[in-house]
Amino acid sequence: MSDKPWSGRFSEPTDAFVEAFTASIDFDQRLAQQDIAGSKAHARMLGRQGILSDDDVSAILSGLDAVAAEIEAGKFPYSVALEDIHMNIEARLTERIGDAGKRLHTGRSRNDQVATDLRLFVREQIDAILGELARFREGLANAAEHEADTVMPGFTHLQAAQPVTLGHHLLAYFEMADRDAERLRDARKRVNKLPLGSGALAGTTYAIDREWVAAELGFDGVTENSLDAVSDRDFAVETVLACALVMAHLSRLSEELVLWASPQFGFVTLPEAFCTGSSIMPQKMNPDVPELVRGKTGRVNGGLIQLLTLIKAQPLAYNKDMQEDKEPLFDALDTVRGSLKVMADMVPGITFHREAMRTAAAAGFATATDLADYLVRQGVPFREAHEVVGGAVQAAIDRGCDLADLDLVTLQGFSGAIGEDVYDVLTLDGSVAARDHVGGTAPDQVRGAARRARKRLGGGS
Amino acid sequence: MSDKPWSGRFSEPTDAFVEAFTASIDFDQRLAQQDIAGSKAHARMLGRQGILSDDDVSAILSGLDAVAAEIEAGKFPYSVALEDIHMNIEARLTERIGDAGKRLHTGRSRNDQVATDLRLFVREQIDAILGELARFREGLANAAEHEADTVMPGFTHLQAAQPVTLGHHLLAYFEMADRDAERLRDARKRVNKLPLGSGALAGTTYAIDREWVAAELGFDGVTENSLDAVSDRDFAVETVLACALVMAHLSRLSEELVLWASPQFGFVTLPEAFCTGSSIMPQKMNPDVPELVRGKTGRVNGGLIQLLTLIKAQPLAYNKDMQEDKEPLFDALDTVRGSLKVMADMVPGITFHREAMRTAAAAGFATATDLADYLVRQGVPFREAHEVVGGAVQAAIDRGCDLADLDLVTLQGFSGAIGEDVYDVLTLDGSVAARDHVGGTAPDQVRGAARRARKRLGGGS
Amino acid sequence: MSDKPWSGRFSEPTDAFVEAFTASIDFDQRLAQQDIAGSKAHARMLGRQGILSDDDVSAILSGLDAVAAEIEAGKFPYSVALEDIHMNIEARLTERIGDAGKRLHTGRSRNDQVATDLRLFVREQIDAILGELARFREGLANAAEHEADTVMPGFTHLQAAQPVTLGHHLLAYFEMADRDAERLRDARKRVNKLPLGSGALAGTTYAIDREWVAAELGFDGVTENSLDAVSDRDFAVETVLACALVMAHLSRLSEELVLWASPQFGFVTLPEAFCTGSSIMPQKMNPDVPELVRGKTGRVNGGLIQLLTLIKAQPLAYNKDMQEDKEPLFDALDTVRGSLKVMADMVPGITFHREAMRTAAAAGFATATDLADYLVRQGVPFREAHEVVGGAVQAAIDRGCDLADLDLVTLQGFSGAIGEDVYDVLTLDGSVAARDHVGGTAPDQVRGAARRARKRLGGGS
Amino acid sequence: MSDKPWSGRFSEPTDAFVEAFTASIDFDQRLAQQDIAGSKAHARMLGRQGILSDDDVSAILSGLDAVAAEIEAGKFPYSVALEDIHMNIEARLTERIGDAGKRLHTGRSRNDQVATDLRLFVREQIDAILGELARFREGLANAAEHEADTVMPGFTHLQAAQPVTLGHHLLAYFEMADRDAERLRDARKRVNKLPLGSGALAGTTYAIDREWVAAELGFDGVTENSLDAVSDRDFAVETVLACALVMAHLSRLSEELVLWASPQFGFVTLPEAFCTGSSIMPQKMNPDVPELVRGKTGRVNGGLIQLLTLIKAQPLAYNKDMQEDKEPLFDALDTVRGSLKVMADMVPGITFHREAMRTAAAAGFATATDLADYLVRQGVPFREAHEVVGGAVQAAIDRGCDLADLDLVTLQGFSGAIGEDVYDVLTLDGSVAARDHVGGTAPDQVRGAARRARKRLGGGS
Repeated sequence: MSDKPWSGRFSEPTDAFVEAFTASIDFDQRLAQQDIAGSKAHARMLGRQGILSDDDVSAILSGLDAVAAEIEAGKFPYSVALEDIHMNIEARLTERIGDAGKRLHTGRSRNDQVATDLRLFVREQIDAILGELARFREGLANAAEHEADTVMPGFTHLQAAQPVTLGHHLLAYFEMADRDAERLRDARKRVNKLPLGSGALAGTTYAIDREWVAAELGFDGVTENSLDAVSDRDFAVETVLACALVMAHLSRLSEELVLWASPQFGFVTLPEAFCTGSSIMPQKMNPDVPELVRGKTGRVNGGLIQLLTLIKAQPLAYNKDMQEDKEPLFDALDTVRGSLKVMADMVPGITFHREAMRTAAAAGFATATDLADYLVRQGVPFREAHEVVGGAVQAAIDRGCDLADLDLVTLQGFSGAIGEDVYDVLTLDGSVAARDHVGGTAPDQVRGAARRARKRLGGGS
Repeated sequence: MSDKPWSGRFSEPTDAFVEAFTASIDFDQRLAQQDIAGSKAHARMLGRQGILSDDDVSAILSGLDAVAAEIEAGKFPYSVALEDIHMNIEARLTERIGDAGKRLHTGRSRNDQVATDLRLFVREQIDAILGELARFREGLANAAEHEADTVMPGFTHLQAAQPVTLGHHLLAYFEMADRDAERLRDARKRVNKLPLGSGALAGTTYAIDREWVAAELGFDGVTENSLDAVSDRDFAVETVLACALVMAHLSRLSEELVLWASPQFGFVTLPEAFCTGSSIMPQKMNPDVPELVRGKTGRVNGGLIQLLTLIKAQPLAYNKDMQEDKEPLFDALDTVRGSLKVMADMVPGITFHREAMRTAAAAGFATATDLADYLVRQGVPFREAHEVVGGAVQAAIDRGCDLADLDLVTLQGFSGAIGEDVYDVLTLDGSVAARDHVGGTAPDQVRGAARRARKRLGGGS
Repeated sequence: MSDKPWSGRFSEPTDAFVEAFTASIDFDQRLAQQDIAGSKAHARMLGRQGILSDDDVSAILSGLDAVAAEIEAGKFPYSVALEDIHMNIEARLTERIGDAGKRLHTGRSRNDQVATDLRLFVREQIDAILGELARFREGLANAAEHEADTVMPGFTHLQAAQPVTLGHHLLAYFEMADRDAERLRDARKRVNKLPLGSGALAGTTYAIDREWVAAELGFDGVTENSLDAVSDRDFAVETVLACALVMAHLSRLSEELVLWASPQFGFVTLPEAFCTGSSIMPQKMNPDVPELVRGKTGRVNGGLIQLLTLIKAQPLAYNKDMQEDKEPLFDALDTVRGSLKVMADMVPGITFHREAMRTAAAAGFATATDLADYLVRQGVPFREAHEVVGGAVQAAIDRGCDLADLDLVTLQGFSGAIGEDVYDVLTLDGSVAARDHVGGTAPDQVRGAARRARKRLGGGS
Repeated sequence: MSDKPWSGRFSEPTDAFVEAFTASIDFDQRLAQQDIAGSKAHARMLGRQGILSDDDVSAILSGLDAVAAEIEAGKFPYSVALEDIHMNIEARLTERIGDAGKRLHTGRSRNDQVATDLRLFVREQIDAILGELARFREGLANAAEHEADTVMPGFTHLQAAQPVTLGHHLLAYFEMADRDAERLRDARKRVNKLPLGSGALAGTTYAIDREWVAAELGFDGVTENSLDAVSDRDFAVETVLACALVMAHLSRLSEELVLWASPQFGFVTLPEAFCTGSSIMPQKMNPDVPELVRGKTGRVNGGLIQLLTLIKAQPLAYNKDMQEDKEPLFDALDTVRGSLKVMADMVPGITFHREAMRTAAAAGFATATDLADYLVRQGVPFREAHEVVGGAVQAAIDRGCDLADLDLVTLQGFSGAIGEDVYDVLTLDGSVAARDHVGGTAPDQVRGAARRARKRLGGGS
């Protein structure tokens, strides 16, 4: 009984299985450094406000530093009986410094303490993810500039649609990652509020100074309502959603890399150091990294559902259910951070097979739209032009040739508006160069977009 | 064949079941007005750029207005064979104005068209939801001010924890709704970019002016990459997540209202106009509205999963899968808008039973923490004070009385630090008043918070 | 007030928006025929038990038939004020037959009534889906027999792994669909129990005969506990999960069809009647059907989450939340039924390009495993054989040739165990024929499996 | 390079981060004993078929036993470089027994190996969960028999609806758990098929005997198609869904226990050994166990979504994505097993406060339906009876009394059909006793149901 910080009115010990079942120390020990940072700021504030003596504060601060060192060194004796990281650290502190340790919990509760630790942790992780996102985007922008003139088939419905440049294609992922960064920065604003001072649920009777603690810990401000502050995990849900979108984007890129690395496409070779082989098929070189990243998408979606299910219909304020908030959150952050790192590392090592891409673009009537646009410029209404070209495509299919291989007389059989200059618009380079506006695939536009992309990166991740 | 806008190279008609299975007109007809607004801006831009003649533009504009009127009047002849709202409107326009109608699709594709329509729609809905959120928050702030002095039990683990004021409790929901509004405004920034001009995937060969169209339609700017623009639905996912958090908050309030309306709690009576009865039990008056709102939480979570599953691993650019984006999005927006409206309507009509709340707060040793804090102020380390009070609570339970009913001698038996003034901290009003800091439950703090809340509302929803 | 069946103790009318917000008639009208069937059986039982007079029973039965006819004919005047299908039908019945109509609800409640309707509906839909699953499997088994000798590359990681036969590949989907049918039949057992007689939650005070009603309606038995029976929706969740797995399987087949229909693979041509074109790109013929089916996967997953979220933590017995059970259930059943139908219709029309498949199988060192197995048979431990072949593959890559193109001396340079007969195992037909055991890809095995498959189908869907 | 079993054709080492990122040994080491059991059966079969020599088989069997002992003793040197449990064990075996170890992998692949391990593991876990489910149901049946006469309010919409017996209420959970067991047994049939022999995807060229291995490992049969067998994880998804429904049921019971343990309800006291206190509020005794179980619901739902997202649209056969199947599966099984254990342990220790339940049942007009039924028996149509009682309830509310407190004259003012015997139907015991049919709440029915329940348990869990 004696080791529980809440045993006062209990006459029976906790059931042994219940003790293990309800303990969180296995996973919340990841919050150790945040817990100590928060406790140090809290202790100093209590000292400034005259609630703790200077001696107590000094003892607590140096005691916590010693505990932090012990944790860092992997020598901390975690105890399941002490339930969570907060109690583990406080008990250890008291072991070391005596009564002063018992005074640290003055004016706070585990409810506002864990909310504070969690926000500090999420903030740190968001910053790390923003760093990986910047590195990933930089790789994309560099590759895009390199491949601004590389023509490949642009697909819709996985059918050749119109020629695009590879650089343009890569910058599509830059845009996705850029929104991801923006979204995480927006989420961070809502993460970065200090809940400490909310007590168990109602605030505290001590004359605390929350703003001072907030400033000390780098928070942008304090939370406005104690009941809300101890039960709010919106910041976790929102962060996990932002993570889910990162994974959605990486899953799309992964899908394309897996396709492109297949012998049927042959558009890329992934760096060997990012592939593995087969225990049974000696010829295999598998695109494990993009496959695995794609496979990890569901795990963040699942974590999101876990959190949303968790918070549904919970009456105020804190309920034990909330303990389940950490694992999906930690897992989502780790998954995204690792996936971004491995993709950012891999992108610069990908070999693009320009010839294979161009060959693929030349097949499949990818310039049919250019022919329709040509007709429109001759005055044919777009819908009619579309039908004319549909007929020409069918004729080319029947002859087993491409549009540019049909002779002028044949083409003019479909529309009298066609002249000799039609062959100019049927080339791949002519086609991509013609889409020459902001957002279009023309090489010059891509170079401009890559430059702007790098500039946006420079202006803060 | 002739009615399909893409039938040029097809020699067989579409299978009848396939036609119905793949059509979207049943649900995308909700985008009609957005589609027309987008088409009008597109047509005017084509005119300004000299791509369409002034006559064509005039014919298109007045033709589209006529079609809009027909839709408004419920007289539009929707056709499944024409697949979607875009084709339905264009076909109808061409029926009315002839060849000019066939020129409208110049320089765009259904891919950038539907992305534009959808963004216009989501923007409108977000604005409407922000309006309901403001109304909901206003009701909460008003009620909070009214109930700033009403004492009720604050719960954790659904056990009486510490006394709080009802106003403070209501303001917790204000904070949640306030974050919801902030989150939707952040999402709106990413919604409000113009994708038109991205064509099918690569941009267009016409000399279009995307910035002009953006300004005309109230967008903040244009999307940067055509491949991304036609395949990006992040804005939908992010908006649905923001909706899911609104529902999470409403589900918590609903759960509390259902509990509070039960005879066991008896804290509130819901307005009769928001309840229904039973077909079999004549005495019933059921809290249908909060129950149903709580029940609707899952539908937005489900929609979120639908969207995240949809976009996973899709190669660029547009795929037919994407057609499935609309229903969960529409449903989430409708659900949140309706749920907020009904809650905003209901909150001001709730009767709070102050006496029942106070009675409940007086039971359950809710001021035990105050006693511990009292001891700390006498110099007892917090952890020891906690144990002392645990013993006193147990003694009171054994005698079937409350803490304040224990005589001084008995109390002093637990700690010599207890003096006669201890009874001051054991009262409900003393307890709430003592939590007198930003975020705390003291009536004065609540009044201040309610004032600030209303001010934040004034500053734009 | 007067039109509500529960208005006895209410003094205020329902708020107009609340009336619409809480009504279910828009979607539960799909249960009309089930509701009438259930009411007829209930009325007849009440007559048999002497609770209703024969005249009342006759009037009710013919009145319900008339209402059913009205509904069938699309002439039923649905009323939102009457909330749901149960009240709509009962009110209409009473309009037609007077007081006898008011006696129908004796001994039952809407709670057990809706549970009964829903189970009847799900049972019917499961049977219809089992029919589509049988048709789908039949098409697969037929195609598999046709293509038992067609060699194609078997992929792992979307890299050529080992040659397989197309028939074998198609039968993999047969197995998935077969499990789907088995799973739905298992779910059906738990669907097919009669809840009627559970009343609102506690049973009824009338001397009812539940077994008779169960037999009359084709149920396998009665539910055992009234509180459970009115609040149980496990059967819906389980059915939706079975639907989600059907969709998962169809999504895999769809993904493959989209890949195979791409110009890069060129393995299949889908029937034109199942494709659509592009409004902008005249050459396009898009695999809309498999794309859309793939896209619909998320909608069933979302519905599953909606239901699981809905039932979480609901106290017994019925709560209004439960009204939200119908839409995701209906949607999942419709989605699966339609998706199966369209796939079952399409499969027999697919053209398989055998030559392209064989060509693809011949590239990519797909017989490398066969070489390793050859070495093992010569006494080389498998792990060493694997390394030997890895080296040989690398040599072939360096020379730009296939394994079978390396001369014997070169091959023997990698292992002295290699003899002239090695070339036999490096052919495609030799490779597939060698996997000649139950579950293996050898043509004879495939023919046997297809025969067994058809036999399993014959034995009841 | 040398330690990878697939390094033959690779010229570069794996990137260090990639090695850790793609390794599964951290979590798949849980499959160690299953992997060894599968390998032993495989080796013996290879021996029986003459593919391995008797000496090799003996060496392998005793070597694997030694490795198993090492693992059991916690002394196995897991290596991330060896990726997964299969390679770790095989490498260790080869270290111990030399070349024979390199022969073990003959005729199999990691793809069919891991599928086999996983099925063995899931089968074991299902059996363990079935054991906990039986224990849980037994506790419910016992408690139900004890409390067959205990009257409590039956709730709908959390409003008093009709009196029920506590035994009846507890048996509702018995029914849920019974369906859970049935569902798991159905899932187990689909788990218990042997995939070994499917090789990497196409089967194997060795003359293996799959039926023998199946019998040896206790499988009911062999899988029918190798491509399906290596890529099928339906059994995992289906098992996790069954787990999700268990959690849904436990979440409902948990919600009720949390409510009932609140001071407002006061229906139960949970055993102290299953509660914890507060670090800050000395009076607290929190229902941590049901709260935490309720909170864990989302984690299984999340895992289900993870798996469904994972398998969506995966082309055949094995892809690296599949590695992500284990963690959500393990977690769901652990969560359900632990949650069932703790609930089964706790249920027999709950103290039910019969007096508080009866008092609550007596309030709230819970016998109003009985009055309506009484009127029907006097010939009043049910719908009119309902209205009459609604009026009487309103009168009682106005007077602040219960229905039974209204005098006969007053009651007759609502309907002349009311006689003196009306007061018999307004008692709690009369009300529950009257619902005397299968599934009804009458004490005798409950005793009968409890007896049948225990009998069902006896017939195999």
